[in-house]
Amino acid sequence: MIKGIDHIAIAVENIDAAIELFEKTLGLPLRHREAVESQGVETATFEIGGTAIELVQGTTEGSPIRKFIETKGPGIHHIAFEVDDVEGAISALKKKEIRLIDETPKPGKENSRIAFIHPKSTQKILFEMVERAKKM
Amino acid sequence: MIKGIDHIAIAVENIDAAIELFEKTLGLPLRHREAVESQGVETATFEIGGTAIELVQGTTEGSPIRKFIETKGPGIHHIAFEVDDVEGAISALKKKEIRLIDETPKPGKENSRIAFIHPKSTQKILFEMVERAKKM
Repeated sequence: MIKGIDHIAIAVENIDAAIELFEKTLGLPLRHREAVESQGVETATFEIGGTAIELVQGTTEGSPIRKFIETKGPGIHHIAFEVDDVEGAISALKKKEIRLIDETPKPGKENSRIAFIHPKSTQKILFEMVERAKKM
Repeated sequence: MIKGIDHIAIAVENIDAAIELFEKTLGLPLRHREAVESQGVETATFEIGGTAIELVQGTTEGSPIRKFIETKGPGIHHIAFEVDDVEGAISALKKKEIRLIDETPKPGKENSRIAFIHPKSTQKILFEMVERAKKM
């Protein structure tokens, strides 16, 4: 089911300062920057040896990223697994009685299709599943 | 400097339950299990597409993993970058005035050499650097 790690998402307070840290201090290349208004976030994605780190800043009052930072402080927010078939992964997990936040896939960045697993079923750790857009 | 992600460490309350989740629910293979008494932790490492997820449970009263869980709850604790030369990485960061928790490398799991960067210098996110043991 799981092919690898698509990305690791980090909740940050100030995405510009975090981008500077990743580019200048750690020497990692910025691949993609995107504001996802429907989710109230701004994101910046860095390539790192076949996987990616995604910085996420909450841009609206009620955004889950801001709530996470208010409760826990800035930090690593979730791990996203790459899967071939997100619908197949959802139904495989449902058969194992795992709760999902998204029982049907929703659109993600760069035309991917995503679903979050409910942390109540995964030792309170938040995991996402990502089916990347097929390359033409 | 950074070649890839060596592992992502997850602080868990009950490593046996977390291992069962990773093996049975997510279908990931357990590669290595080790108690590191000097650091007051028990660890379990899962392979996932060239990188690894390391589950960590604190086993002593004052262990940083237990303190992390008391403050923030179970969750993703740090990201470890793979580097070729940990001493070189330490001195490159010191030249950029980045604070380190470990100014000299310390021994890690599976004969690796490791150093943690101080989160005060990295937007409060904890990063580790890992120089893997050379294969004979």
